[in-house]
Amino acid sequence: MRPTLIAVLFAVFSVSTSEAQDDAMAAADAYQQAHEQQILEEAFDFLALPNNAANRDDILVNARHIVAMLEARGADAQILEASDSLPAVYGEILTPGATRTVMFYAHYDGQPALPENWTYPPFEPVMLSGRIDAGGAPVDWRDASVIDPDWRIYARSSSDDKSPIVALLTAIDALVAADIPLGVNIKFFFEGEEEAGSAHMRTMLETHRDLLAADFWVLADGPVDPRGDPRIVLGVRGVTSMQLTVHGASRDLHSGHYGNVAPNPAARLAHLIASMRAPDGRVLIDGFYDGVPAPSDAALALIESGAYDEDGLVAEPGIAGVEWRQGASYGEAVMVPALNILGLSSAATGDATRNAIPSTATAAIGFRMVPGQTIPRIRELVTAHLESEGYVILDRAPTPEERLAHPMIAEIHWSTSGYPAAVTQAEHPDVIRLTGLVASTSDRPVRVVPILGGSLPLAPIVDVLDVPFAIVPMVNPDNSQHAPDENLRVGHLWDGIRLYAVLMADDWED
Amino acid sequence: MRPTLIAVLFAVFSVSTSEAQDDAMAAADAYQQAHEQQILEEAFDFLALPNNAANRDDILVNARHIVAMLEARGADAQILEASDSLPAVYGEILTPGATRTVMFYAHYDGQPALPENWTYPPFEPVMLSGRIDAGGAPVDWRDASVIDPDWRIYARSSSDDKSPIVALLTAIDALVAADIPLGVNIKFFFEGEEEAGSAHMRTMLETHRDLLAADFWVLADGPVDPRGDPRIVLGVRGVTSMQLTVHGASRDLHSGHYGNVAPNPAARLAHLIASMRAPDGRVLIDGFYDGVPAPSDAALALIESGAYDEDGLVAEPGIAGVEWRQGASYGEAVMVPALNILGLSSAATGDATRNAIPSTATAAIGFRMVPGQTIPRIRELVTAHLESEGYVILDRAPTPEERLAHPMIAEIHWSTSGYPAAVTQAEHPDVIRLTGLVASTSDRPVRVVPILGGSLPLAPIVDVLDVPFAIVPMVNPDNSQHAPDENLRVGHLWDGIRLYAVLMADDWED
Repeated sequence: MRPTLIAVLFAVFSVSTSEAQDDAMAAADAYQQAHEQQILEEAFDFLALPNNAANRDDILVNARHIVAMLEARGADAQILEASDSLPAVYGEILTPGATRTVMFYAHYDGQPALPENWTYPPFEPVMLSGRIDAGGAPVDWRDASVIDPDWRIYARSSSDDKSPIVALLTAIDALVAADIPLGVNIKFFFEGEEEAGSAHMRTMLETHRDLLAADFWVLADGPVDPRGDPRIVLGVRGVTSMQLTVHGASRDLHSGHYGNVAPNPAARLAHLIASMRAPDGRVLIDGFYDGVPAPSDAALALIESGAYDEDGLVAEPGIAGVEWRQGASYGEAVMVPALNILGLSSAATGDATRNAIPSTATAAIGFRMVPGQTIPRIRELVTAHLESEGYVILDRAPTPEERLAHPMIAEIHWSTSGYPAAVTQAEHPDVIRLTGLVASTSDRPVRVVPILGGSLPLAPIVDVLDVPFAIVPMVNPDNSQHAPDENLRVGHLWDGIRLYAVLMADDWED
Repeated sequence: MRPTLIAVLFAVFSVSTSEAQDDAMAAADAYQQAHEQQILEEAFDFLALPNNAANRDDILVNARHIVAMLEARGADAQILEASDSLPAVYGEILTPGATRTVMFYAHYDGQPALPENWTYPPFEPVMLSGRIDAGGAPVDWRDASVIDPDWRIYARSSSDDKSPIVALLTAIDALVAADIPLGVNIKFFFEGEEEAGSAHMRTMLETHRDLLAADFWVLADGPVDPRGDPRIVLGVRGVTSMQLTVHGASRDLHSGHYGNVAPNPAARLAHLIASMRAPDGRVLIDGFYDGVPAPSDAALALIESGAYDEDGLVAEPGIAGVEWRQGASYGEAVMVPALNILGLSSAATGDATRNAIPSTATAAIGFRMVPGQTIPRIRELVTAHLESEGYVILDRAPTPEERLAHPMIAEIHWSTSGYPAAVTQAEHPDVIRLTGLVASTSDRPVRVVPILGGSLPLAPIVDVLDVPFAIVPMVNPDNSQHAPDENLRVGHLWDGIRLYAVLMADDWED
């Protein structure tokens, strides 16, 4: 089956563009060329609004601004709240005759930005002639006869995610200006607390289930492929973590008088870690892989077709070879769940080392989950594993009586944040269609990623709404998102307008 | 053989005192009672001299003071140096007709003392009516008609080791006053840099080999048994340590994008530790126990007779059971060499945990060695073990080329300090005789410790001089040595005078 699937997927990637797609792209390009200053003006106004999710008033100003932006396009728009969430903005444009509905998601809040770490103030957007570290200097774009696509807008959220919001709305302008009808009902869901952890995403979707219903969610978040190619991301791993402390004696003890006498919690922790995780990353906890599906042939075919930038991801940070299994690829390694040791601490090392047996040793342990795994199940399996290794498990330090009663005591604390994985199957018909649409917008190969190694709280889209989704990004990979001097390459904004115009003009019918 | 040995040893312990020993004790007691103020005056003068080994001038003042104290007893005395050592003080009193020579060792330097941490200034000795934490207050001992043996002298080195020096010299005074001849030639070696690590002990013994020759070394250092019983310590474990760092990628990497991809040095370090040390402390490094003798029957008999304060050592710090082997005793655990994990560090744990795979993980590892093991051999075995586990070993961080060429890289640094074990056999005739002598001075059982778990740089006594030795302490166990408010119980000073008088009056002949 695999060679056939590869053939199917490659056939899709190289599909010749239809007339409708050509028309949508031409409309986007024409509109962009005729309205460069106007598009940028809207982006600059939006980027001037501080959007740290820690400041509810700022977030509300942004939300109202987006409502106005949506209403200017004739969309029905409203602010949504759920429980004590920050406001999200919902918008919809119903299309007569359309049979399907596509939801476009982005978030408008941004990571905190400390002005002293920025070259230019984060909420006073500025156009530079290139990257700052390549000598980029301010340019007077408002009076320029031509906007160079290599110019860059520097501001917090210029890439993550305010410019995708501008691109989505401009795509509508472009289609309207060219009299091209939308092919689908369009909905927008713009979140206001993504950078703060999307704590209310599930409640929000549950509360507004009917409003947010759609046939497919397109998430306009994150950058394109590091190689510069268009990218579609079909899933993310889930994440949870724990602190595992092994207790020894009630205090650090002289390593001479107590070497071989007092239990050594650092050595015991090492044995525990070794009991949980093989040298190649395989997890040895009983039941850990139960219910975890093998990578599908379609996913493996995508990996083989170059979904991941193997060379850039592996060799660049000095890795001699992927940890997971002999000869495995990057993609195969992130398709399976991972147990990561995130940190170790016990007494001190280096110059601060003392000749003492530590009284405790702690490991921070992270889990990256795939579909089929849940946080409660991971907790249950880890607990059972520790018990099978002979440990009594506490959620606090032991009492003197407990120390004398039990030779092996582990204290564990689970992170209160975290969420399960979310994946759309590579062989889903809408994914095949989406891939063809994205492919039509670029001469470069589309990189369809079966699952990102990282995590985003997307599970409620699947769990609550039962809707397939894909991340379809537009911004440049070198955008410094989450860091100082976040920026957007203007050419990527133009590409985004074209990309989303094509997705909106299509009827998404089989 | 074992029951017989136990019988022999117990026979020795309960030996009735000879007339000579009774005479020596009576002389010591009489002299002490007649000269309490004078003895204390000498101690107070001595304790008023600052003696931090970091200050050579202070040390020299102490050394000259001791020379004068020795000469006051008619001893030949001189300052010894070797290489760039701090001065040691040598003294000798030859005894006509004596066939044997006993060396008495103590050190006169002290741990650093920060006055702000002390209740009374560390170099202004003061007599208190009891322990400070039991409400002890200054008493006017100079005008007291009776000195209460429970009074305590507070000053740096009051226990460790200036009072033993005073006791040794006062023992001579007592024997002379009673016209009791010394039974042996007596030598004194008072070291001036013990608390600074005894870095020149070996050179000192090599340089002054003839002067320091003796049939037996008695070390007047450390406290008596924690239970208050007289103690003889026949050996110490050796010590060395290393820092072991496992290298992963060249920088910390996102735990999602790199979980199962980047090598996890914290997990690899855990596997390395588990490969080196079994859960019960047994060392799994090939050859580690080669040449290590099994505990002798005599040593085992001493353990069974209560050499170590098992209850106090194990239960008090909250240990459910000795780590070493099921059912092993404290003594059996410290008779064997130990591999101790002294510390772990890798990225961060707790609130500082980041969702990243650390680029390095480090363990501080200590070894406590027994006779038959040497530091070069330990280094060789550890290196071979790491190589057999697949590691390339460096003494620095890897270059980018090395990272890409080798999947497993360990960086190791050995401590430049450390020394091998030193032990005198429990069945040595002089040990048997010494045990009988010490037993004669007390109604309490003598605790003969085959080997201390801790380490002291005594190996040169065996390696260079090829002489048996024993630590024969006199000071109270609750003396707070090395800490603020170091103190000496006066009754223990009186006991010390009697103890050393008995050792000096005996002829040490079989």
